[in-house]
Amino acid sequence: MASLYLIGIGPGSMDNLTGLAVKKLNESSVIIGYKYYINLIRPILKNKEIIESEITNEVDRAERAVLEVLNGKTVSLVSSGDSGIYGMAGLALEIISKKNIDIDVHVIPGISALNSAAALLGSPIMNDFCSISLSTNLTPWNIIEKRIMNAAEADFVIIFYNPKSMRRQNGIVNAMEIIKRYRNESTPVGIVKNAYRDGQEVILTDIKSMDYNTIDMFSTVIIGNSQTYLYKDFMITPRGYSKKYEY
Amino acid sequence: MASLYLIGIGPGSMDNLTGLAVKKLNESSVIIGYKYYINLIRPILKNKEIIESEITNEVDRAERAVLEVLNGKTVSLVSSGDSGIYGMAGLALEIISKKNIDIDVHVIPGISALNSAAALLGSPIMNDFCSISLSTNLTPWNIIEKRIMNAAEADFVIIFYNPKSMRRQNGIVNAMEIIKRYRNESTPVGIVKNAYRDGQEVILTDIKSMDYNTIDMFSTVIIGNSQTYLYKDFMITPRGYSKKYEY
Repeated sequence: MASLYLIGIGPGSMDNLTGLAVKKLNESSVIIGYKYYINLIRPILKNKEIIESEITNEVDRAERAVLEVLNGKTVSLVSSGDSGIYGMAGLALEIISKKNIDIDVHVIPGISALNSAAALLGSPIMNDFCSISLSTNLTPWNIIEKRIMNAAEADFVIIFYNPKSMRRQNGIVNAMEIIKRYRNESTPVGIVKNAYRDGQEVILTDIKSMDYNTIDMFSTVIIGNSQTYLYKDFMITPRGYSKKYEY
Repeated sequence: MASLYLIGIGPGSMDNLTGLAVKKLNESSVIIGYKYYINLIRPILKNKEIIESEITNEVDRAERAVLEVLNGKTVSLVSSGDSGIYGMAGLALEIISKKNIDIDVHVIPGISALNSAAALLGSPIMNDFCSISLSTNLTPWNIIEKRIMNAAEADFVIIFYNPKSMRRQNGIVNAMEIIKRYRNESTPVGIVKNAYRDGQEVILTDIKSMDYNTIDMFSTVIIGNSQTYLYKDFMITPRGYSKKYEY
């Protein structure tokens, strides 16, 4: 039976793919994705029909993937990171459910920006955290703003996806203005650009000193909670062991 | 130079390890971990010194790992899931920073329970979400409670790690009592047990009908937001494409 695999390829380096993702790519005859991400995994896509498209054509890509499966082909629709975290899995399943299409479909998990940015920073998300996308493309700002307030108030570590784009320059600035009402200016901030790919940059700073110009559309921003601290090249959010154990 | 690798091995199936994790395990001469997780990856641990311990000895394991590196050995300290998400990375870095130890240390990202449970459920965390551990071992209940309230109020999808343990049976019951104040009883709930390993179970239910007896210490529980719905075997949180595009 033909299947649809909704695959997260991780940050983009070949060695942050899982074995399961590689296996499902191998089993597919058609690979569909945004061309920038297809390029990152092209070395392992031998003898495949590759359908590449531009960044904004998500709906076309998802519909094309479903159509190819209905035509009897096994298809991998790829996202960077984890397909189920701001990736293509949700859109594909939305379309399948809305049109009540009966195909075999599986989501294959991947290393999302939260996993990869956190690893490069040390251990910033070792305690409870929230993930918030600052893109207003699909979510209105008033909802995003409410989530930032609640997350800051409850002392969650906060991960910002899509902190900036060509058209949206002020999302991260406005978000930080909200956070400043709840958190000390010395709270650590980690900025990771192009995690595990060419141009990787890891910046450790704090709320007061962070430079918004260093943030772009390939950045993930992690704001520490009240316990987070910096040590050498690491951003560390303790989980609480030191209150309970001697070391 | 000897190095310490803080490695997330993913949910436990060999094919949800990343290539980078396998590479760093191969480079290590000593592997340290809780014996249940060591067992999951034993087939690839050839010619290694393996130091296994019981579940509660986290501090001992982290200190031993640091000591072995100081003795000149390259060590992998393994966690299930992602070492940086309620895993061993934070504790190891806490100890290193507190004792001001100067060793080469790297966190290697892995597929956490949030990635794997979400993939098995469909696309429940496609929009903003919070991760909350219900373990009161290291965090007092009043802080956890505050986080649940804020997360529920701001309509985050909520992922509960450690929903129950041998000693803590009521955490998830109390957590759901809080959530019921903010969310409709028909809100979808996904429960995933033993993701990608023997005994895997995927349960789709809702706040009203969920059976607390199905939840154990190997479970991850995901509570939908106000937009989440069930379709066939999938739990879907739309990201908002249907408001903007025709399909």
